[in-house]
Amino acid sequence: MTGALVGVRRDFDIVGLVVLAMMTGLGGGVLRDVLLGVNPPVNIGSWERLLTATLAAALIFWQHDRVLRRERVVMLLDAVGLATFCVTGTIAALSHDITPATAVLLGVLTAVGGGIVRDVLSGRTPVVFSGELYAIPAIVGATLTTVAEAFGAAGIVYVGPALVCLGLRLVSMRRGWSAPGARRR
Amino acid sequence: MTGALVGVRRDFDIVGLVVLAMMTGLGGGVLRDVLLGVNPPVNIGSWERLLTATLAAALIFWQHDRVLRRERVVMLLDAVGLATFCVTGTIAALSHDITPATAVLLGVLTAVGGGIVRDVLSGRTPVVFSGELYAIPAIVGATLTTVAEAFGAAGIVYVGPALVCLGLRLVSMRRGWSAPGARRR
Amino acid sequence: MTGALVGVRRDFDIVGLVVLAMMTGLGGGVLRDVLLGVNPPVNIGSWERLLTATLAAALIFWQHDRVLRRERVVMLLDAVGLATFCVTGTIAALSHDITPATAVLLGVLTAVGGGIVRDVLSGRTPVVFSGELYAIPAIVGATLTTVAEAFGAAGIVYVGPALVCLGLRLVSMRRGWSAPGARRR
Repeated sequence: MTGALVGVRRDFDIVGLVVLAMMTGLGGGVLRDVLLGVNPPVNIGSWERLLTATLAAALIFWQHDRVLRRERVVMLLDAVGLATFCVTGTIAALSHDITPATAVLLGVLTAVGGGIVRDVLSGRTPVVFSGELYAIPAIVGATLTTVAEAFGAAGIVYVGPALVCLGLRLVSMRRGWSAPGARRR
Repeated sequence: MTGALVGVRRDFDIVGLVVLAMMTGLGGGVLRDVLLGVNPPVNIGSWERLLTATLAAALIFWQHDRVLRRERVVMLLDAVGLATFCVTGTIAALSHDITPATAVLLGVLTAVGGGIVRDVLSGRTPVVFSGELYAIPAIVGATLTTVAEAFGAAGIVYVGPALVCLGLRLVSMRRGWSAPGARRR
Repeated sequence: MTGALVGVRRDFDIVGLVVLAMMTGLGGGVLRDVLLGVNPPVNIGSWERLLTATLAAALIFWQHDRVLRRERVVMLLDAVGLATFCVTGTIAALSHDITPATAVLLGVLTAVGGGIVRDVLSGRTPVVFSGELYAIPAIVGATLTTVAEAFGAAGIVYVGPALVCLGLRLVSMRRGWSAPGARRR
């Protein structure tokens, strides 16, 4: 959805919007599955997910004025996606035979990978690199998920890490927190 | 081939030309095979294909003046490639155990993926996103191929979807058709 | 390490530095493993390697002034990395059932792939494409490795191709050699 919005700002055509929407929403999970050797990646293996991304792009295509006026709702949805993807991505990774550090990495990749692909394709420096607290909530969420799994957590417990990640992201947006940069002196 | 030409315009060196030519010609199929779990991807597994891409780059390296003067021939070859790749890509995808929607997606990816990689590597906004009717003929071709396969088509029949794709692309170039964009009002 | 340095120049935050450092140092090997179907790629499967990249980024984050003043040391380390990766990458590829041409390609990819990903993510035209003799030493090294392997070489012998690659790179930097470009006339 942020994918399609970025596309509108760049005057992409309808194909560009659909591709950007797919990449942004599904790209992180596809990268994770490629690294884990899940073929074909679940995100492109089911037409339901492809359809959802297409519908999001269609919504933006016809109603981008209205959507842009509700930018806070879009940012909220994006944060919910971040929180959900970092937890589900980590869980999916943990079901394979990998180390905890790799699971955290892949969980974070699921959450932020789509946005990176979106920014590279539309010629922007990836937002995730430049100041905003975007990856850090995902890192915290993925780490908590991995720890919880080590203690044998199941089902509903994983809502916890997701809420922590969501909370961190929302608070940081409201307060304008940013990650430390290495300013040249 | 369009890859190497873009490279000449950017003053890339000979290595850059070869890499861009390989990426453009073979990249789409490599992406498809990675997503399908074909290792190594057929496009890089055979030296014949690597050699072909290298020869194309060499031709451009030494003769780019002459080639550029025949731009319409290059665009025609590019359209033939688009048509061929969207059909062969879809057929290759259908031989795996995947849904029709995924097969269409991978067929289109085979056809346009190389061009996207080329544009990202050379710092351009992917042409496929911005107005020209490029992806849409591939989508039509891949869809027709999938439908034909469901009806048990074989061999020569698949020339049909390729010709439809080629025709659509050529007509759209001549008439200057473009895909609808979501212009900001 | 060059990854994190590029990040500093672009005013990326600490997350960006770590990601760029990982991509640059480990990205080439990850691409190779994805193409070979090694899941998960060895470079992200071991926390030691992830930690090393993170430490390199941390060093740059706190000491980039001092590191930048020693730019020649960084370039030397980068050349050593190039030489090491092109040989180890080729050897890793040769242990799979692939043709020699593919092994050379994957060895070169291991050596230069990380730098390409770094440049794409930070919005630069990949250096490897534009003039400097960077890929050519890697191609020579990977080819020599493949030839040595065909003659049944083992262990210490492979230091040879690495030294040739390193020497070529260092001499070309000192002399300012560059690969031929296809200048427009």
